[in-house]
Amino acid sequence: MAESDYQVVEFGPMESWGAFFGGYSPQTLAPGRKFVDREMDLGYFGVSLNSRVPGEGVDYWHSHSVLEELYLFLEGEGEMGLDDRVVPVKAGTAVRVGQGVLRTWRCAPTSPVPLKWICIRAGGARLKDIPKDAAPIRDRPLPW
Amino acid sequence: MAESDYQVVEFGPMESWGAFFGGYSPQTLAPGRKFVDREMDLGYFGVSLNSRVPGEGVDYWHSHSVLEELYLFLEGEGEMGLDDRVVPVKAGTAVRVGQGVLRTWRCAPTSPVPLKWICIRAGGARLKDIPKDAAPIRDRPLPW
Repeated sequence: MAESDYQVVEFGPMESWGAFFGGYSPQTLAPGRKFVDREMDLGYFGVSLNSRVPGEGVDYWHSHSVLEELYLFLEGEGEMGLDDRVVPVKAGTAVRVGQGVLRTWRCAPTSPVPLKWICIRAGGARLKDIPKDAAPIRDRPLPW
Repeated sequence: MAESDYQVVEFGPMESWGAFFGGYSPQTLAPGRKFVDREMDLGYFGVSLNSRVPGEGVDYWHSHSVLEELYLFLEGEGEMGLDDRVVPVKAGTAVRVGQGVLRTWRCAPTSPVPLKWICIRAGGARLKDIPKDAAPIRDRPLPW
C-alpha cells in the first residue's frame, strides 16, 4: 500500500507561541517566531508563527524581491510600517505585502495581550494560472 | 510618489468567523468558510478561514492534482480523514497534504468550542528554488 503524502506536526496553541519559540537566533531572525516550513516539507509556500509582547517589535525593515507575503493577525493589537505609512492591525486584519515594499511591525505598547500572527510567503505561479484541480468525491463514505 | 503595493482587509476575530461567514454557497463550498484570496489580490497562494461547530464537518472528500495544502488549526478539537487514516487535530496542529491525497474533516462532537483553522494552498515554484530574496535594512529609522 502506497504511503499517503501527508505530514502532521504539533506547534502548540497560540498562547504557547511566545515562550515556546525562545530568543533571537540566525535561524529565526527575531524572538517569538517559528518557521513551519523548517519543520515540515512544504514545497510551494512558507509559513511562520509569530508572537510579540506589548511594545515589542523587530529592529529592522525588510523587503522581498521575489516573494509576496500575507500577514494574518489573530490576537492583540499592533502596527505595521509599510514604506511611508503606519497601519494599525488587530485580530482579523490581513495585510498583503507585494514585492519591494519595506515592512516592519510591533505589538502596540497599549495592547492588552501579545500580538499573534501568521505570515505566509510564496513567489511561484499565480494561483489563477493553475487550472482548476480540485476533485470532490461525494460517494466515498466519511470515516466517522 | 509611487503607490505602495500593499492591501489591508479586516476579516474579524476568530470568534466571529462562523456566524459572519454565513451558509453554503457555490462560492464557499461549505458553511463557515471565507476565502481571503477572493477579497485580496493574492498572486501566488490562496488562504481560507474556517470554522465548524461541534459535530459539524463537510459532506465530501476531495483531493488536488496540482495544489499542496496546509491546514493550520487554531482552536477547538477535530479530526481529518486522510486517505485511509483519521488524524486528531487541535489548536497548534499543522497538517500538510500533498497532491492526490483524499481529505475530509470535522469538528469533534465532543469539542468544547468550535474548530477554527486556516487552510493555505499553492502549487507554483518550490520555495527552496526561489533564490534568497529578503533584504533587511537596519539603518532606516523605525516609524514609531
